[in-house]
Amino acid sequence: MLQPSPEQARTLTAALPDHVGQRATISGWIHRRRRLATVSFLIIRDRAGLAQVVVGPSDEAALAQLDTLSEETVVSVEGTVVANAKAPAGVELTSPSIVVIGAQAETPPIELWRPGLAPGLPALLDNAAITWRHAAQAAIWRLASASLRGFRRALDADGFTEIQTPKLVGGSTESGATVFEVDYFGRPAYLAQSPQFYKQMMVGVFERVYETGPVFRAEPHDTARHLAEYVSLDAELGFITDHRDVLATLRSAVAGMVEGIRTDAPDAVALAGARLPEVPEEIPVIHFRDALQLVGADPDEPDLAPEHERRIGRWALEQHGSDFVAVEGYPAPKRPFYTHPDPADPRWTNSFDLLFRGLELVTGGQRLHVYADYERALVARGESTADHAGYLQAFRHGMPPHGGFAIGLERWTARLVEADNIRRTTLFPRDLHRLAP
Amino acid sequence: MLQPSPEQARTLTAALPDHVGQRATISGWIHRRRRLATVSFLIIRDRAGLAQVVVGPSDEAALAQLDTLSEETVVSVEGTVVANAKAPAGVELTSPSIVVIGAQAETPPIELWRPGLAPGLPALLDNAAITWRHAAQAAIWRLASASLRGFRRALDADGFTEIQTPKLVGGSTESGATVFEVDYFGRPAYLAQSPQFYKQMMVGVFERVYETGPVFRAEPHDTARHLAEYVSLDAELGFITDHRDVLATLRSAVAGMVEGIRTDAPDAVALAGARLPEVPEEIPVIHFRDALQLVGADPDEPDLAPEHERRIGRWALEQHGSDFVAVEGYPAPKRPFYTHPDPADPRWTNSFDLLFRGLELVTGGQRLHVYADYERALVARGESTADHAGYLQAFRHGMPPHGGFAIGLERWTARLVEADNIRRTTLFPRDLHRLAP
Repeated sequence: MLQPSPEQARTLTAALPDHVGQRATISGWIHRRRRLATVSFLIIRDRAGLAQVVVGPSDEAALAQLDTLSEETVVSVEGTVVANAKAPAGVELTSPSIVVIGAQAETPPIELWRPGLAPGLPALLDNAAITWRHAAQAAIWRLASASLRGFRRALDADGFTEIQTPKLVGGSTESGATVFEVDYFGRPAYLAQSPQFYKQMMVGVFERVYETGPVFRAEPHDTARHLAEYVSLDAELGFITDHRDVLATLRSAVAGMVEGIRTDAPDAVALAGARLPEVPEEIPVIHFRDALQLVGADPDEPDLAPEHERRIGRWALEQHGSDFVAVEGYPAPKRPFYTHPDPADPRWTNSFDLLFRGLELVTGGQRLHVYADYERALVARGESTADHAGYLQAFRHGMPPHGGFAIGLERWTARLVEADNIRRTTLFPRDLHRLAP
Repeated sequence: MLQPSPEQARTLTAALPDHVGQRATISGWIHRRRRLATVSFLIIRDRAGLAQVVVGPSDEAALAQLDTLSEETVVSVEGTVVANAKAPAGVELTSPSIVVIGAQAETPPIELWRPGLAPGLPALLDNAAITWRHAAQAAIWRLASASLRGFRRALDADGFTEIQTPKLVGGSTESGATVFEVDYFGRPAYLAQSPQFYKQMMVGVFERVYETGPVFRAEPHDTARHLAEYVSLDAELGFITDHRDVLATLRSAVAGMVEGIRTDAPDAVALAGARLPEVPEEIPVIHFRDALQLVGADPDEPDLAPEHERRIGRWALEQHGSDFVAVEGYPAPKRPFYTHPDPADPRWTNSFDLLFRGLELVTGGQRLHVYADYERALVARGESTADHAGYLQAFRHGMPPHGGFAIGLERWTARLVEADNIRRTTLFPRDLHRLAP
């Protein structure tokens, strides 16, 4: 219960090589203690990495203290910075003076110092506050965080305005998807399944908008690729010719995400075991009709099965050397009512899915922009225009041709690290069974 | 229903001065039509501003077309760029060729071409999709959006990691505040009132974290300053000495928000009627005890009333020339259980409120970081540690001294523009009565 170490007086472990020959103070968690016959080590972990502290055999006070220190206890260590090619970052601290900050840590439920995470997924999720301290695990979120930053940076540079739209809504957005009901001051409200309607309305204001935030799906799927709450990276832009303009913007957003990782979290790539893709200047496109033919499916199939997507992903890699491929033209019945038809052939739509390494990562396309078309589309689906009055108002009063897309952040990260379960890629997953921590 | 105008072929209105003497195509909404005896005008609005199109008396085809065009119809106009000091941005388009994109707009419910927004607040909120198209209204959100960007930029530069934490939680975060209940696959869940517990847990991983996202308060207040859903700018950082380190980080975050506006939305300041503050290098601090004395309140008062906050705001302006003042040391009973006491006098806490122009904008402070202290604090409030097991685990296994803050984005914007009602500052407000649009 001693003096804490403020940021100012502290050297991050990664900056120690700049202080060789000097005394320096580091602060962090005791990652690992090792007592050998001749010399003992303390590995300290901070947000920048690891540092090795050496206690010599003659330093009896420090050795005695070492015996009292448990792993994960937070300490400050002042020591002399000495070059040692074998130590992390090529330096170590000698002649240390160790101060405990806070309290002794109890033995953690997960051995954080081991290279891998041994426990099964349920134990890792139950102990999320500790699990994420593991460098390989933390690196997964650092990929996500850097991707978010890169996404915003790319769209900011392209004249987009960030929006924040309500998650409490009066009705459902995506017909078909199931919604969570909320007791809203005694009447029903729902959690937004997407910011779709709001981002379209805001195209009428800012022309180009994006939002990064939570979306909610009450689908009772207990699979390795579904979450009840996830982070959606949404964009919508006006004054397009068709969905190909949307795809071009999506391409630059995804390239921005990769660039964000390269710039802000380059070391997380290896730590998380990620494989970064090259984003081609132009993403290869295949029409839905041709995609069915390619995979040998019935030409009347209304959608692609997961094995079809994997097959098309392989085709894109073989034929175009690309980890990405867009399938365009999905038949209208499988797309939401606001989907713009293909003007040349209304059996098809100006929509697309972007497959990343054979898995659907993004849904996007051109939307209707003429009020009368919305009326027709809703009536055709047996829905009422009155239920959507606030949304449809935008189209009554002048809207440009527009479209957009939504990237699932966790799906992106899961593909980067080839996670066996999407739950490994979000900080505190929510699913059919899990509401805690 | 003619050819749309893709972004590539288009010149933004603000860029027209670069094209004097050339033909250029602009795209946007018909902001205003004016037919005079000798000459007629069309004002086009796009995301960058306004541009004037001139139709001469001899151009009968264009004049006839003008009669058919309603305000808010989306058009593309090709014309010759001519310098005219009286026109917006000093140029106008002559000899125009006008193409309608999409459909004729119905007369909007709000006259967007007028300098001010005439309708009362309920009408503005009911017609939000149209209201936000007004330049003065759009400028308010542009201040918010630029502030978000500036907030992130400041903290990114300071070694923070962005996090995204669940909005669906198993219990309430802030004792006292009321929560929205959700039907979560047949059992109750709640909407998070803040990311408090999660950002603290993530200090154990990344040391310094922030989150920008929605929070939910089911407080049945029908006032000009409460929203049921708002955007919270949360940060939390470890390895602090006390709450003064948190205040220093808050200072740089707020300075970043002001800088964000200056960099990214300088013209929105005047359009929205905002007054930007200077953020002093060091924010003046007054202890709660002294604040009570300053305002002549009973020394046993447990909290500051709004008129007290206004009085302290005036004091800060007069004595320190500052729009900001931090009140520190609030008595423990009025602060949440995780608040760190003042080590010198446990009647007070290491917490603060930041007042901006006499109104509470931010709550922050140092948190407890020792598990045994959490146990004591929860027991003292009659709460169970078992209900918080996933959160408390972080403290069992080593946590540094830490603290953080939460800025209400809408409160910030509302003070900047001196809004009479906070509902004017969020895109689609949610309150006791309003769930739409």
